[in-house]
Amino acid sequence: MSGKKKFTIGIEFGNETVTALLVNVSNGNCINAATYHYTHGIITEKLPETDVKLDPGWALHHPRDYITALKRTVPQLLKGNPVDADQIIGIGISFADSTLIPTTSDGTPLALLEDYKDNPNAWPKAGRHTAAKDKANQITQLAAERFETFLDRYGGQINAEWFFPKVWETYEESSSIYHAADRLIEGCDWVTWQLTGVESRSIAAAGYKALWSKTEGFPLETFFGSMAPDLANVIDDKMLREIAPLGQQVGELTEEAARWMKLPPGIPVTTGTLNNQAAVPATGVVEPGNMAILLGTRFVHLILSDKEHRIPGMVGMVEDGIVPGHIGYEAGQASGGNHFAWFIQNAVPEQYAREARRKKQSIFNWMERKAAALEPAESGLIALDWWNGNRSILVDEDLSGLILGYDLQTKPEEIYRAILEATAYGTRKIIETFIASGVPINEIILTGGAPMQNQLLLNILANVTGMEIKVANCPHSSSMGAAMYAAVAAGEARGGYASIEEASRNMAHLMPKTFLPNNNDKKVYNRLYSEYTLLHDYFGYGYNDAMKRLKNLRAGILEKKQR
Amino acid sequence: MSGKKKFTIGIEFGNETVTALLVNVSNGNCINAATYHYTHGIITEKLPETDVKLDPGWALHHPRDYITALKRTVPQLLKGNPVDADQIIGIGISFADSTLIPTTSDGTPLALLEDYKDNPNAWPKAGRHTAAKDKANQITQLAAERFETFLDRYGGQINAEWFFPKVWETYEESSSIYHAADRLIEGCDWVTWQLTGVESRSIAAAGYKALWSKTEGFPLETFFGSMAPDLANVIDDKMLREIAPLGQQVGELTEEAARWMKLPPGIPVTTGTLNNQAAVPATGVVEPGNMAILLGTRFVHLILSDKEHRIPGMVGMVEDGIVPGHIGYEAGQASGGNHFAWFIQNAVPEQYAREARRKKQSIFNWMERKAAALEPAESGLIALDWWNGNRSILVDEDLSGLILGYDLQTKPEEIYRAILEATAYGTRKIIETFIASGVPINEIILTGGAPMQNQLLLNILANVTGMEIKVANCPHSSSMGAAMYAAVAAGEARGGYASIEEASRNMAHLMPKTFLPNNNDKKVYNRLYSEYTLLHDYFGYGYNDAMKRLKNLRAGILEKKQR
Repeated sequence: MSGKKKFTIGIEFGNETVTALLVNVSNGNCINAATYHYTHGIITEKLPETDVKLDPGWALHHPRDYITALKRTVPQLLKGNPVDADQIIGIGISFADSTLIPTTSDGTPLALLEDYKDNPNAWPKAGRHTAAKDKANQITQLAAERFETFLDRYGGQINAEWFFPKVWETYEESSSIYHAADRLIEGCDWVTWQLTGVESRSIAAAGYKALWSKTEGFPLETFFGSMAPDLANVIDDKMLREIAPLGQQVGELTEEAARWMKLPPGIPVTTGTLNNQAAVPATGVVEPGNMAILLGTRFVHLILSDKEHRIPGMVGMVEDGIVPGHIGYEAGQASGGNHFAWFIQNAVPEQYAREARRKKQSIFNWMERKAAALEPAESGLIALDWWNGNRSILVDEDLSGLILGYDLQTKPEEIYRAILEATAYGTRKIIETFIASGVPINEIILTGGAPMQNQLLLNILANVTGMEIKVANCPHSSSMGAAMYAAVAAGEARGGYASIEEASRNMAHLMPKTFLPNNNDKKVYNRLYSEYTLLHDYFGYGYNDAMKRLKNLRAGILEKKQR
Repeated sequence: MSGKKKFTIGIEFGNETVTALLVNVSNGNCINAATYHYTHGIITEKLPETDVKLDPGWALHHPRDYITALKRTVPQLLKGNPVDADQIIGIGISFADSTLIPTTSDGTPLALLEDYKDNPNAWPKAGRHTAAKDKANQITQLAAERFETFLDRYGGQINAEWFFPKVWETYEESSSIYHAADRLIEGCDWVTWQLTGVESRSIAAAGYKALWSKTEGFPLETFFGSMAPDLANVIDDKMLREIAPLGQQVGELTEEAARWMKLPPGIPVTTGTLNNQAAVPATGVVEPGNMAILLGTRFVHLILSDKEHRIPGMVGMVEDGIVPGHIGYEAGQASGGNHFAWFIQNAVPEQYAREARRKKQSIFNWMERKAAALEPAESGLIALDWWNGNRSILVDEDLSGLILGYDLQTKPEEIYRAILEATAYGTRKIIETFIASGVPINEIILTGGAPMQNQLLLNILANVTGMEIKVANCPHSSSMGAAMYAAVAAGEARGGYASIEEASRNMAHLMPKTFLPNNNDKKVYNRLYSEYTLLHDYFGYGYNDAMKRLKNLRAGILEKKQR
């Protein structure tokens, strides 16, 4: 081991962009970051270079963009930095969940083959692809009928965006693609395969998105056979049964992949993981008791525990899925940044937009400033944050949003604040449910995207939860986490770490500024939260199913209108 | 009686404007209309020509503006029209309820006297003056404690805008003004006094706003004495006990008043009335079975019946109060045009405002057009129309607005349509309550202000109520109604009519276009109305008092903030 500083590279593949990060292994300092927007973006209208239109809910990637991403980002990281390529001791990949790529036996995506390129099912189905909703519901129903034990690990409901709904959709819509695909592979595993020439199966992707668990493995052939007889052997036919732990070395960088990235070959590449899970060690959460919350389009809550608990509405629980030796729980709020953006786009009057321009502020900032001038409860409003349904803890996507308390004096900033507050109440509901289920939460560390800029939101979160809110220092938590796993794969001998705990303790940093609840606001929010709970339970537990009836009625009207 | 055509003049005194109408008595044709904006407007900030500031909720008029109104409007009516002054056979006045004017014994407003002009209580308190809210609540409470029978005639609650809350407020805030006032007089009665030199007491004002009824008269001295001993004799000390029926001649135009209006003296002037009640004969409603609805800032519902019913949440019931021989019921929705205006001002995004300008449309029209393109139930939204509390049928001003069913696709026009629909559900709730209480309603005739322009609203009203909606032809219904009562006062001998029924049958006209429900929309709205009812009852009848608790909490926060 040379005395020179050591670095790892973490690469996060999102739904629309890829971000690569060069990180100093000893202290976690970000040396450089590079971002690439997929050349073909997220494909929702029609297949590239064809006239093949896509149905609503479809969201695909161009597989060539994944390689382009490597070529465009990694070489940027080293430019102008006094880092020699031989100081790079590891590479880690994280990927938006769950991305299904059908390939030939050598990993070539079917979408790149002349025979299949006109078939949407041959293309990588991105995380955001929701068209397999029916299939997800059918899997949930089949599993419930068969008393499959895995269902409990996913809060009782399989999501349209996960792996097997997409597989089943592919089979049902186009069995020729299903049969032509030698491999059905997750995005993160496909990239590590391209980098190393070695196929692997990430524990995070398998556990959180593909029904696998350490104690029970994959569902039985009879279960898959109940979906369709041809699918009975889907595991043995199309994927690895052997599951790769996080922080393990999958292989070394091949000559070809090294050329793409202008790196020397032979660099260790670690098991791929998912963006949400990768972010956890980057927030410093590597032990039970602390919750990492990712504030993005949606909110994701991740927490470790030594014990297995059945927690109402959780999105998933995977032993070793984040930190080996612990069970990693995931919960989620379906409405987060998407909800705030809805308000900004649909409910800010012209006068406010003009004021924002005059003050040279974004509308987001201007609305935040106006809302921040209000006291808790001053708006007289309370909202249910179910614009995109409710994942945790109700697991009911047919719920919808509600605002109560309008009067003729109600101002837009009051509505905006009520929406921010509602998501904080939703977060508190999840935290309380974890605690009540036996998973203690002593500290909250936030990371994520656009909503992290909203200081008012972070303040409200502190006062609504009554807990100190800490914030991860690195804005690219997923690629930072991937870089940490890469340091573990490199191992102590090469200047890395023996465990992800050790990597996180050395490389993760928090912002010096934290958000502390104050007693007055906390008290007022306790009262408002009890109002939220009353409405949450009334509309959430079926006392008044107006939300579902209205959605049904609307669905009927829209169907009639289309005819 | 000469063979020349006969005309009457109706003059409507609103909160901010006065409109005079010259009407052909034989067919109700409007010959001319003239409008005057009060020179001093509605006075809410400070007394004219002083530094005396007004508290929130205060709304005064300058008494000189009333006379200016006569001078500015009536002479305009005759200009350029081939109508000789001697063809005018009557004058009628209607006034915004309830306007309290303290005067000397000759009718001089105290506000015009040097000694009193700096005291806000000396000034005419306009209909919109709401500062006496506490007094109204105390009157309600006193009446309930004393089992006063009048309370039932007002839906169980006395309103801050009515006559005696304003009187009591005057006494309590400034007993010197109370004692200095020889007369406490309603706006409509003050104007007829100025026109004729004769003081009278309108049955409409006394009945709907001053606790009087034909069978019971005014409340007893002991009741007024329970408010304050000095007030025991308020009726005998300050006003007439004798009540003037509608359509009766109060007196003839004096020389002075004739000079103000450039009319010959001697023209009969009829008993004053209130704007809402005056509008009824102008819609053709002079018999039981038809409901007139005035769509203004708020909605007002007026209906005649031969029987006395206690109708939940009604605003008032007065025998002979609209058409002699019938009981005139009034109900109301506190949120109407004010609610739509709230939306337009606070919730229309910049992009929509720009589109409206590009299309050279008002934002109101543009939003209506976009909302009209939707089917019922397509928005997936349902609202409770309680932005300004609920008058009929819940009589609860501490209720507030609610919208349920938001998702990330919800568009502004969907919210707007949900708000229009909610007011229609509120109207249906009132209609059903009247019918269930024994007052049949076979037909609806609309009149009113800005909301009448909204064809979508009228369409929704037809489909939600399931009834044909007719529309009064004359846009100035109150002054038209006043002109009809004037024709009755003139009498058949002078070319007028024997009764208001006869006047209305000859002079009231409906628009040829009516709004018919269609079966499909009606069915869908039946289902949506059942959702409205479920929410209405849950939040309206105390199953969940969130709205009140939130208002209380806000009041506490605002109080603390002001300290």
